[in-house]
Formats: sequence, structure tokens, C-alpha cells
Amino acid sequence: MTVSVYFAAGRRLWPEYEAHLPEALREAGIDAEIRLNAPNPAAVDYIVFAPSGDITDFTPFVNCKAVLNLWAGVERIVGNKTLTQPLARMVDPGLTEGMVEYVVGHVLRHHLGMDAHILGQDGIWRNHILPPIARERPVAVLGLGELGRAAATALAALNFPVMGWSRSEKKVAGVDCHSGEAGLAHVLSRAEIIVLLLPLTPDTTSLINAERLALMPEGAFIVNPGRGALIDDAALLAALDAGRIGHATLDVFRTEPLPPDHPYWAHPRVTVTPHIAADTRAVTAARVIAENILRGEAGEPFLYLVDRARGY
Amino acid sequence: MTVSVYFAAGRRLWPEYEAHLPEALREAGIDAEIRLNAPNPAAVDYIVFAPSGDITDFTPFVNCKAVLNLWAGVERIVGNKTLTQPLARMVDPGLTEGMVEYVVGHVLRHHLGMDAHILGQDGIWRNHILPPIARERPVAVLGLGELGRAAATALAALNFPVMGWSRSEKKVAGVDCHSGEAGLAHVLSRAEIIVLLLPLTPDTTSLINAERLALMPEGAFIVNPGRGALIDDAALLAALDAGRIGHATLDVFRTEPLPPDHPYWAHPRVTVTPHIAADTRAVTAARVIAENILRGEAGEPFLYLVDRARGY
Repeated sequence: MTVSVYFAAGRRLWPEYEAHLPEALREAGIDAEIRLNAPNPAAVDYIVFAPSGDITDFTPFVNCKAVLNLWAGVERIVGNKTLTQPLARMVDPGLTEGMVEYVVGHVLRHHLGMDAHILGQDGIWRNHILPPIARERPVAVLGLGELGRAAATALAALNFPVMGWSRSEKKVAGVDCHSGEAGLAHVLSRAEIIVLLLPLTPDTTSLINAERLALMPEGAFIVNPGRGALIDDAALLAALDAGRIGHATLDVFRTEPLPPDHPYWAHPRVTVTPHIAADTRAVTAARVIAENILRGEAGEPFLYLVDRARGY
Repeated sequence: MTVSVYFAAGRRLWPEYEAHLPEALREAGIDAEIRLNAPNPAAVDYIVFAPSGDITDFTPFVNCKAVLNLWAGVERIVGNKTLTQPLARMVDPGLTEGMVEYVVGHVLRHHLGMDAHILGQDGIWRNHILPPIARERPVAVLGLGELGRAAATALAALNFPVMGWSRSEKKVAGVDCHSGEAGLAHVLSRAEIIVLLLPLTPDTTSLINAERLALMPEGAFIVNPGRGALIDDAALLAALDAGRIGHATLDVFRTEPLPPDHPYWAHPRVTVTPHIAADTRAVTAARVIAENILRGEAGEPFLYLVDRARGY
């Protein structure tokens, strides 16, 4: 029997899923019809949704077995009183993978000194300056949640001596883990490249301030794909101006889009990337959707079901 | 008893080894005195050497237990008739590691589209273009010797679907290996990023020619840290001009240093790096020297001993 899937995540997202969703359903052995509208709401078996999507009233979808959200966050729909169907959030392996690729790529970029070559094709052969190898380059990952652990593990696999820091004590295989204020000073004073993957809380807001920047080795690199407000921007700009910090690659900002006149854009020691380090990826998210439809058709419990009382 | 080590590899190399060699000897528990000259040749226990080094006549070093070369190649000293002491060549794990770091770094650079950010900090927030994740980006490593295998394995660990190609059939865990002419066409027509790590032989000279470039996907990337002559330069330049090949990152050339007026330097789709992808690294090479001195003092066979008849 053909399963009716209503893609109600919005027209803007459809081009990303147009190929991947049918493919994932086919690979899962699901005979499905995907529609971008629902002339007959009672015929819809599953709704693929995003907070920017096309439905505000879920009442007419009386036979819908689940609403499958494409985002990890459900704060914008969990309070919708018309939504009585099971609601699943997205846990996308592609998001973690994309983050690891961004972190490893930019750490290697700074480690290898790539920018000098990319920006300086001047015909002069300078082969007397060899970068150290990874095992001579201590790096640190601040924040050891799912993303931080994955990034730290991937860097350690490339032989970087990796230190990790988190507020409470954690253990990650192959990573020299520290915690607390003393642990932070230990890590910052040794790491030549630091990666920020901390959650934003009152405790971590402006964690990277003037005092802590002053602990870092001369010329250290900062990669921030975590949260913009982890950094005290004025303090970072001062440390960059002084050359104390060698370069900052920043993907997240207190205000996004980063305003065109923000000093980060023009600073020679800053690379702005436009919040692209990690996002839900259609190819992997489509497989999670297919897996959940497969579970629904088999009468098995859905993955990543939202607890309405808890709100996530 | 103090071991007398004569660092005769040339003054140019000493700054690299000044810290690492004493440290490696100390870590190996060797009580050594390192000198940059040999007023009393008969007192020298070990000579650390490089082809650019300070000795042409090895006769006076009558008590020297071994000549420890800092390079893998010994073609420039193996024929020296005064050299009767055991001669060891360098097999440096740091060289392989450096190559893997270069390959993974530049593959991720092209995969993530970093250059657009590094070169284009124009204040415009373009976050609608997400790169694919690694598992959607087929890459190929041509050449599956020690360096090629290590690079292919590291790329596969980051989820890239990795194809490998070699003249004769080889197997590498996690890598889809092909061989022969048909295998080459298969690999080239699918890989969005190819890495050249083939040895240079009459068969591989100009392997990457117009015909084979035409097989590659539109906009593919080439990374060549192998040998310059693997590529037909005129054919590559034509493919780059046409935009058929998206970018080439080249570390090796038919003539080195690459002449300042060579079109590669000025080409917007080419990044020249000055033969820095892999070199003997002092930190790891010093440990190999220390290990061999330890073996010599214990009367054990030296590592990487050169067979004079065979010449390597």
C-alpha cells in the first residue's frame, strides 16, 4: 500500500529534499507518494515538518501517524495545541559529520599555514619553512558534548595532541580532558589552536575574554563554530590587532547575519564563515525520516519522539 | 659512558635538530655529546649525515659504529669508497604523517570550498550554499604505496567514499581499489577530488593528460603532492582555463623551484605550494637516530641498513 507523505516543511527546503527524500524512502523499501500540498488531509499518513513550514492547524490530519520535524529544536511547535499526533525531532548524523569536517578542515588549514599559499601566489618559492607535524601541535576543544567529542576524536586520529575542556569532568578516549577554572587556564596556556564548541549559558557567555586570551600562546588560532557570544568581541579584536592571536575563524556571531560593517569582515586576521559549519543535511536527515516511517508502518516506536511535558 | 655523536649533516639543518636531537637521545636514555665538528675523528662513535653534509672522506672515523643518514635516499653517498662504516638510511614516520596532513587538509579545503571565504571577505552573508558532507563526495587516491595508502585510509576515516588506483592490484581496507587502464577510467570518471601519489615511471609520466582530464567530473579538484611529471602541464592548464577542472593544488613540478613566470603561479584556479607536503621532520627523524644509536650500543642490528650492492 502506498504511504502518503506530506512535505510541509516549506517550499524553501524542498529543493534540498527533492532528490534525497524519495531516494531514502526507496532505499528503505517504502512505497511512498510525496506531495507538497494536502487537498485531502485525512489521507495523509506522515507530515514532514519544519518550523518555517506550511501548517499551523494540525486538526484536519486525523489519520496522520506522526509529524516528523526536520530540525533538532521543536520549541516553535511543541506548544501548538492542535498538534496531537506523535512528534519526532531530528537527530541528524550529517550535522555532526559536517561539524567535524569544518573543524578538522580549518584546524588543518591553520596548522599547515594554507592561507599564506592561497593568498600569496607571488612566484617566490619559499620551501625553507616547514610547518610542524600534527603531533607537535597541541590543540584544544572547549566543550565536550556530542559535537565537541566527535571533533576532538577526529583531531586525535590525525595525531594532534588534543586537550578537551568542559565545565564538569568528562572522559573522551585519546583526549587529555580537563575541567573547571584551573583546567581552563591549563588548556588555554598550552593549545596553539582552540576550537569552541561549548553550549551558550550564563557561565560560558564571553568565556573567551581579555584575561583568558592573554593566557594563550603567542600567535594561537581560534576556531569558533559554537556560539557567537562565547567570545568577547572587543577583547578578541584587541588581541588580533596586537598580533597576540594569530587568526580567528568564526562561523557564529552575536548578530547574524554579521553586519557588513562589522570589523571582523575587514580584519586581515579574521575569516568569517556564514554559519555553515553544521546544519541539517538533506541526505542524512531524509534517511532518519525514512527510518521513522518504516517504524510507523511496522507499529514500532518512533525514534527521537518529543516528550510534550518536558518540551523536547 | 658518553657517546660521541658528530652532526655532519650540514649547518643548514642544525637549527631544526638543535632541540629535537638532544631531546630524543635523552628520552632514549642515551648519555651523548653532540658536536658540530670533529677535531678528533677517532673519538666519534656515530655520524649523523645528509648528502649536503660536511664529510667527503670517511677514512679518519676509524671507531665510528655507523653513519646515520637523515634522508631516505642514499644515492649520493652509497658510492663513496671511503665509507666503509655501516650506513643507515632514514625511514621517517613524520614524512608520512606530514603527507597525510597535507592531503587531508587540502582535500577538506576543496571539499568545504574554503577559498571562497579566505579570498572573499566582502561582508555579504551567503549561508544558503551548504557544501555536501564528505560521505557524498567521492575522492580518489592514485598510487597506493605507503603514502597513498596512509592518505586514502585517513580520508576514508573522515567518511569520504575513497577510491584507490594502482597499476597492479592492491587492497586497502575501507578503500574501493581499482587497477589497470579500465580501472583508471572508472576512478577518474567518478572522483570529484583526485590526489596523485604515484611513483614516477615511464608508465606514469604525463598520466594525467588531456584524454584522462576529459574523463573527470566537471569542476573536479586535483591535488598533486606526488611528482610533477605525472601531469601534462599544457593539458591541465587548458582544462583549468575551460573551467573543466575546478582547481589544482600542486606541490611538485617538472622544474623546481617553479620559475616565477610559470603560468601556474598566476592562474586563479591553481595553488602552488613549494614542495612542502612531505619532508623529513626533525622531531621524528631524531627519534629514529636515537633508536639506532641505542641499537648500536646494545650490539643489536641497525634499522634501515643500506645494502651496498643493491644501492639502497
